[in-house]
Amino acid sequence: MKGKVSKSVKSWERRLSGQIDEETMLLLASLDVDAELYKYDIIGSLAHAIMLREIGILTGSELSAIRKGLKKILTDIESGKIKLDLALEDIHMVIETALIKRIGQAGQKLHTGRSRNDQIALDLRLWARDAVDDLIELIGNLQRAFVNLADEQGWIIMPAYTHLQRAQPILAGHALLAYVEMLDRDVARLADCRKRIDVCPLGSGAIAGSSIQLDRKRVAELLGFSKIARNSIDAVSDRDFLAELCFDLSLLGVHLSRWAEDWIIFSTTEFGFIELDDSVCTSSSMMPQKKNADTLELIRAKSASAISSLVGLLVMMKSLPSGYNRDLQDDKRFAFPIVSSMKIALNVAEKIVSTAKFQPDRIRAGLDAGFLDATSLAEYLVGKGVPFRTAHQIVGELVANATRTGHTLAELPFVVLQASCDKIEPDVYNYLGAENVVKHYKTAGAGGKRQLRKQLNFWKKRLKSD
Amino acid sequence: MKGKVSKSVKSWERRLSGQIDEETMLLLASLDVDAELYKYDIIGSLAHAIMLREIGILTGSELSAIRKGLKKILTDIESGKIKLDLALEDIHMVIETALIKRIGQAGQKLHTGRSRNDQIALDLRLWARDAVDDLIELIGNLQRAFVNLADEQGWIIMPAYTHLQRAQPILAGHALLAYVEMLDRDVARLADCRKRIDVCPLGSGAIAGSSIQLDRKRVAELLGFSKIARNSIDAVSDRDFLAELCFDLSLLGVHLSRWAEDWIIFSTTEFGFIELDDSVCTSSSMMPQKKNADTLELIRAKSASAISSLVGLLVMMKSLPSGYNRDLQDDKRFAFPIVSSMKIALNVAEKIVSTAKFQPDRIRAGLDAGFLDATSLAEYLVGKGVPFRTAHQIVGELVANATRTGHTLAELPFVVLQASCDKIEPDVYNYLGAENVVKHYKTAGAGGKRQLRKQLNFWKKRLKSD
Amino acid sequence: MKGKVSKSVKSWERRLSGQIDEETMLLLASLDVDAELYKYDIIGSLAHAIMLREIGILTGSELSAIRKGLKKILTDIESGKIKLDLALEDIHMVIETALIKRIGQAGQKLHTGRSRNDQIALDLRLWARDAVDDLIELIGNLQRAFVNLADEQGWIIMPAYTHLQRAQPILAGHALLAYVEMLDRDVARLADCRKRIDVCPLGSGAIAGSSIQLDRKRVAELLGFSKIARNSIDAVSDRDFLAELCFDLSLLGVHLSRWAEDWIIFSTTEFGFIELDDSVCTSSSMMPQKKNADTLELIRAKSASAISSLVGLLVMMKSLPSGYNRDLQDDKRFAFPIVSSMKIALNVAEKIVSTAKFQPDRIRAGLDAGFLDATSLAEYLVGKGVPFRTAHQIVGELVANATRTGHTLAELPFVVLQASCDKIEPDVYNYLGAENVVKHYKTAGAGGKRQLRKQLNFWKKRLKSD
Amino acid sequence: MKGKVSKSVKSWERRLSGQIDEETMLLLASLDVDAELYKYDIIGSLAHAIMLREIGILTGSELSAIRKGLKKILTDIESGKIKLDLALEDIHMVIETALIKRIGQAGQKLHTGRSRNDQIALDLRLWARDAVDDLIELIGNLQRAFVNLADEQGWIIMPAYTHLQRAQPILAGHALLAYVEMLDRDVARLADCRKRIDVCPLGSGAIAGSSIQLDRKRVAELLGFSKIARNSIDAVSDRDFLAELCFDLSLLGVHLSRWAEDWIIFSTTEFGFIELDDSVCTSSSMMPQKKNADTLELIRAKSASAISSLVGLLVMMKSLPSGYNRDLQDDKRFAFPIVSSMKIALNVAEKIVSTAKFQPDRIRAGLDAGFLDATSLAEYLVGKGVPFRTAHQIVGELVANATRTGHTLAELPFVVLQASCDKIEPDVYNYLGAENVVKHYKTAGAGGKRQLRKQLNFWKKRLKSD
Repeated sequence: MKGKVSKSVKSWERRLSGQIDEETMLLLASLDVDAELYKYDIIGSLAHAIMLREIGILTGSELSAIRKGLKKILTDIESGKIKLDLALEDIHMVIETALIKRIGQAGQKLHTGRSRNDQIALDLRLWARDAVDDLIELIGNLQRAFVNLADEQGWIIMPAYTHLQRAQPILAGHALLAYVEMLDRDVARLADCRKRIDVCPLGSGAIAGSSIQLDRKRVAELLGFSKIARNSIDAVSDRDFLAELCFDLSLLGVHLSRWAEDWIIFSTTEFGFIELDDSVCTSSSMMPQKKNADTLELIRAKSASAISSLVGLLVMMKSLPSGYNRDLQDDKRFAFPIVSSMKIALNVAEKIVSTAKFQPDRIRAGLDAGFLDATSLAEYLVGKGVPFRTAHQIVGELVANATRTGHTLAELPFVVLQASCDKIEPDVYNYLGAENVVKHYKTAGAGGKRQLRKQLNFWKKRLKSD
Repeated sequence: MKGKVSKSVKSWERRLSGQIDEETMLLLASLDVDAELYKYDIIGSLAHAIMLREIGILTGSELSAIRKGLKKILTDIESGKIKLDLALEDIHMVIETALIKRIGQAGQKLHTGRSRNDQIALDLRLWARDAVDDLIELIGNLQRAFVNLADEQGWIIMPAYTHLQRAQPILAGHALLAYVEMLDRDVARLADCRKRIDVCPLGSGAIAGSSIQLDRKRVAELLGFSKIARNSIDAVSDRDFLAELCFDLSLLGVHLSRWAEDWIIFSTTEFGFIELDDSVCTSSSMMPQKKNADTLELIRAKSASAISSLVGLLVMMKSLPSGYNRDLQDDKRFAFPIVSSMKIALNVAEKIVSTAKFQPDRIRAGLDAGFLDATSLAEYLVGKGVPFRTAHQIVGELVANATRTGHTLAELPFVVLQASCDKIEPDVYNYLGAENVVKHYKTAGAGGKRQLRKQLNFWKKRLKSD
Repeated sequence: MKGKVSKSVKSWERRLSGQIDEETMLLLASLDVDAELYKYDIIGSLAHAIMLREIGILTGSELSAIRKGLKKILTDIESGKIKLDLALEDIHMVIETALIKRIGQAGQKLHTGRSRNDQIALDLRLWARDAVDDLIELIGNLQRAFVNLADEQGWIIMPAYTHLQRAQPILAGHALLAYVEMLDRDVARLADCRKRIDVCPLGSGAIAGSSIQLDRKRVAELLGFSKIARNSIDAVSDRDFLAELCFDLSLLGVHLSRWAEDWIIFSTTEFGFIELDDSVCTSSSMMPQKKNADTLELIRAKSASAISSLVGLLVMMKSLPSGYNRDLQDDKRFAFPIVSSMKIALNVAEKIVSTAKFQPDRIRAGLDAGFLDATSLAEYLVGKGVPFRTAHQIVGELVANATRTGHTLAELPFVVLQASCDKIEPDVYNYLGAENVVKHYKTAGAGGKRQLRKQLNFWKKRLKSD
Repeated sequence: MKGKVSKSVKSWERRLSGQIDEETMLLLASLDVDAELYKYDIIGSLAHAIMLREIGILTGSELSAIRKGLKKILTDIESGKIKLDLALEDIHMVIETALIKRIGQAGQKLHTGRSRNDQIALDLRLWARDAVDDLIELIGNLQRAFVNLADEQGWIIMPAYTHLQRAQPILAGHALLAYVEMLDRDVARLADCRKRIDVCPLGSGAIAGSSIQLDRKRVAELLGFSKIARNSIDAVSDRDFLAELCFDLSLLGVHLSRWAEDWIIFSTTEFGFIELDDSVCTSSSMMPQKKNADTLELIRAKSASAISSLVGLLVMMKSLPSGYNRDLQDDKRFAFPIVSSMKIALNVAEKIVSTAKFQPDRIRAGLDAGFLDATSLAEYLVGKGVPFRTAHQIVGELVANATRTGHTLAELPFVVLQASCDKIEPDVYNYLGAENVVKHYKTAGAGGKRQLRKQLNFWKKRLKSD
């Protein structure tokens, strides 16, 4: 749907005498990106026309000509029959010009009480509403994939990391559900953003409203909006919802980048925790042995795209005088690509998760490394009445000893343990070793079996009801 | 509350043998910025101690020693009696160290089942909750100032601008209420953010929870949180709420920048629409005649600070492996300064608005310029049955004529008007001139008197009930 | 040159067994954006092939087959004969696949000692080198347009502004040359960036170089590079030059935004300093009288695009492990659009400047407003031996008086002036009024006639020699 | 050097009648951050005074009073004797007020021909010049540390990674020198930035220069600048050099983040390639066994701070009208903290590198994994006349076979190898295995011994001469 420049009559041509050259046309045109809005522009025009009929501006036959004309234009754009001419600058003019050419005078009435300023504000909101709905659905799919994976392969014990150093043992499913939590906030933020999208700006005109008795509530109702914009000046230059959408995608991008980072590391030869399916990996043009998680890397990179879009929108809006300024036209160049990239990224992420295989043997083989039970031992001492800070120091010294002698804590003989603190009793061995540690997790939200079962139930129910 | 480096025992010192030099200490320390959290750290510790008492880890007298100790530390920090020693790295260690020094063994029990990871997550949420509440209140004050100004001085007619070119006439109050709308979305976003702040992370430990039966719900209840974090891994590394807060402030900053831009332009010699009070202006060190709106400029600049903070937080989080990583420590360096800057900016903005004076004479004197009634004339023609596109072209040509002859539209003789379109009747003069235009605004949210009255009523009611 | 997905053999397909679905293909493909590199990819391959011939890997006839094949592919891509198939992922594979299909075994030898990692690094550098050269030329054109305008219309006196308040009088040309200075730094930065682009990475292979005796210097020489990359690991993952290019464009964008802002304000009805040519303005779809400086607004908005691209690149690279990671593939999505946007913006900016008309009558009419001579009066007093701070206060009070009585300083009677400071003599009137002020500027780089003449000579000479 | 608010006379107070309240004062004040400039402000004033004496504005005794006064103020600020009063807004007024109070009328003459606009522009350039020099030195130190490490421990063979997957074997020193290359570009960029800092703005006044015959070249000479600013308007509002400095630090930050990422991964239990010194690690408040590379993480996070500062500066400047606007005051809030953070980060980075220990046993133990010799085998086939693409496929299949049977390539019997390609001869075993691969690297800049030796010589020489 790329356009090209030709000679044509734009809406503003009558007032100004100068001829616009090609470079200027390229600067002014947004058609290369706003063509994506054709569907929303037509739906918006249809609702506007219906209302114009109801308040008597259009006759019944004019409305029906407009309706038929617009529907035909819709299919002609989709089938490529309508050429997108950059000289018409934007999709609104492409459609209005085609309509007037086809149905004549009725078409010339369509823009009554309307400006491109409120028209594009409407189109963007219709687009953003769909975008949010699609994204929420795709995030839900990804969440379900994580929940399934946790349910099916998540009962093995693996190390949890802080600072990328082995910290404490957890069930793998617990680590997977952490991503589900992050994504849950993304969904909540998108849903909040949707409330602010759900406001109909049409009828705000260029900046001040209109002297024609337009029925703004009726248009809103026809288009499924629950509110109308209260202030015409604000309505035509509000792009908050696009910035908010891009921010929500930035955090989503950051979340995906953290997951991608984890799994890129987990699927190295050195960690070997996860095996990705060949279908989401690629090899190298030079090195025949390579299996690279390129998809995870590209998903990680989408955080950069999202942050980039967000910054672009905010900077574009910064210091703009009130009302519509042409700078706003570039909003689409920031918002559109990231929405479509994120949809693809979410789709592929779901595939990656659905086909991933944990490597229990590799994980189990290394579980003894890193003193994952040290904290548990300190808490054991607390249970025996040792103040935590003292317990922490005792265990710190035991770990230092064990490191020197090349043992795990569980391998230390009882006398050594007791020498470090006489509160230690033989039951201490029930608390050492990763498996024992996981058994003893007591707090809500911890990395144990009981907690995982509860969380899985919670998510299965919640994600079903969505 | 700046600290300085001394020799001291940090929580992690026992395990590692190396001595830390001063540069490393400066890199590791966050005390210069997290000192601001002292109050929240103490409150959080108090709640944790109460719960530890209730589950039997602390005795009654230990709790009461801790309570007394913490309260004294609170007043000692506020009075500057406790020196903030950078070698202690962070405010948590300053407080815990002081407590242990003062009350001994009970103090060593306080950190039971707790890590600095969940402790700082808690402190940040307590801080952010207060920040949001303060910001919402200050935005409300600014909104009220705009509403008052609209009510008192907003009934004069002024031009609305698009592209900074005169567009259509509106009541000044309508322009002012556009800012109130933007701010309203800022409040809504902050309130949404608050929902995501309102989650208690304590009890998540370092990453995996605890083997001690901590009552997480009780702590949440004591601290006024309505929910507890569901997943310990997520809980200790979730900084979404800070990014969301900074994003909300970025849009707030953008809104303030647009208002500041408007008023900087409106208070130029050339526009002369608004006279700012001397108390919010400064002069020049070299040019004795200057009266500059420096406050508006500095407020405009806060958009840059907010966007900068937002970017910092997002970049910091990008690609971090799951769980706590020390990178997160810098979160405060991004979030804290912007919150305090924005509070000042909102305070001063309110003063600027409250003391501003519209200059009706200057505004009125220029109202004839710029053909503010052109759109109204086109809509008059629509009322006479002319299709809008045709009407638009007719008026375009009339404007071109009038420009050449140096007239306003209302100054054109009837014959000239009628020559351009025979649908024009003598009643046309009731639609020309800014005053007439404003009288005829019919759509909801437009720039006329009826709409302004309605909106003022709406806002007065809404801002009272807040 | 958009592609579409089909079944095909990618370079990595043999090693991995999984079938790649369409969404994954869309994520992996960069062909939609890297197609722009076709020319550079072919040139790079040609140089590589010549060197392979020289070191005996290719026979003479193989080289000549490759040369003929690549040249044909070049014209076939340009004429649209070669379909860009997304399943081939990137432009390198499109070209290599076409080559092998056409010339057989010789084509299979072309990738000897080469990886897509060093190949894309090379293509990007060739592209960036051209981009920088084009940009420098376009900036030079814009500088020349400003210099011409300053020369032809710049001798009128206008106010200089600080804080958008009238400050001191200057020649209009002085204000215009300030933009030329900003642009001059942009050129210098781009030239510095070019030095870092001018390094040939080919021969670095995937990451570690090659065991084949490739003649890297020969390839560099053939492609016009003055250096070869010293370290293969760095060479394949260095994208600094793209970030630097985007930074240079960000500052260029900021400079253009400041100029655009000035001229948008100067071409308001209220200022009326500059009249833009109709050919760079547009009107409104609703308001028939509008003449809007949309081109200036869109140019202003390009600052947002540039900053957005810069941030995207930096965030993408942040925390990437050493060596090539697929994240880097998105570099083009950030760098390519902004270069092409900036070229258009610079082109149109030149047109705007070349056709702009200062409005001397409007400017002159307002020159008395704003006490532009106040500083000059203070400096007059310094000349009479009054310490500057005292002089500043004396004039401050005189301005306050004059404001109250509605006079300019030049209109104040001598007795009033002398009453404020007895050092004032009748010659004071030679220093009051904008015209007198401008006459007395003495410092290098000030806003007077002598300085403007000197600067114009400087720039004419410098911009000619470029 | 934090200030507090008191009642005082600011430079602009005489002209305006309004009293400024505390919130407004807080917004206007920059003293909390610009106090850092005291030294530069005093040096700049001294140079200005010397020139004023030379052109006859000051008497010899006035100059000597100013000189003595300023020197005393310098030591009084450093010793804390001068209180920094926020009501004085900025460091310039603190110093000038103190000077006038101490030496009377001579002090009132100091500001002759000067505005705070050109004064702060000067101070910032003096500050930035020192910042750049310091940074270049610290980067040099870090480069030397890498070179030393490469020289002393860099001769062991380790895997190079692409996509964090094992790619080809290299000498460890080769990987280390890749960082030296990145840092080298950072130095080059800073040196280029310094050229643009090296321009003296003093004498540009508020915006238009001065009617006093100031000798701008003399001031520049006294302060060690090689050029004076050519255009007064540009001179007072140019902050490009700060943005450029922050950009250079952003790329430096990105480079450090990549190194930190590598080493964080290399020092995991799973990789175990590098052991960091205890002196740059910390442990955990909860988990007694932890040894975390917190310093690397905080260094990694500085990339976020640098990008944040860069974005802040660019956004602040975007769309500012020409000339000085108060927004610019916030420049310091972006530029100052990142320079001081980066200095600390570079210092600590040098310590980390100087004390790091490669773990040759761990590295060697894993060298057989990952088919690091696959590319070498393909290039061996090229040497035997097999086209590279064919060779790539042959080796791909061999790798797939070997993976299934659990062998390395070197473990495959000759018959198996030859079955895949009859060009394979018994000498193939001289090309298999990491050690053999490294021996055969031939290209300039590759990962072999000869190349490393050459590069080490290059860097030792270059870094010595700096």
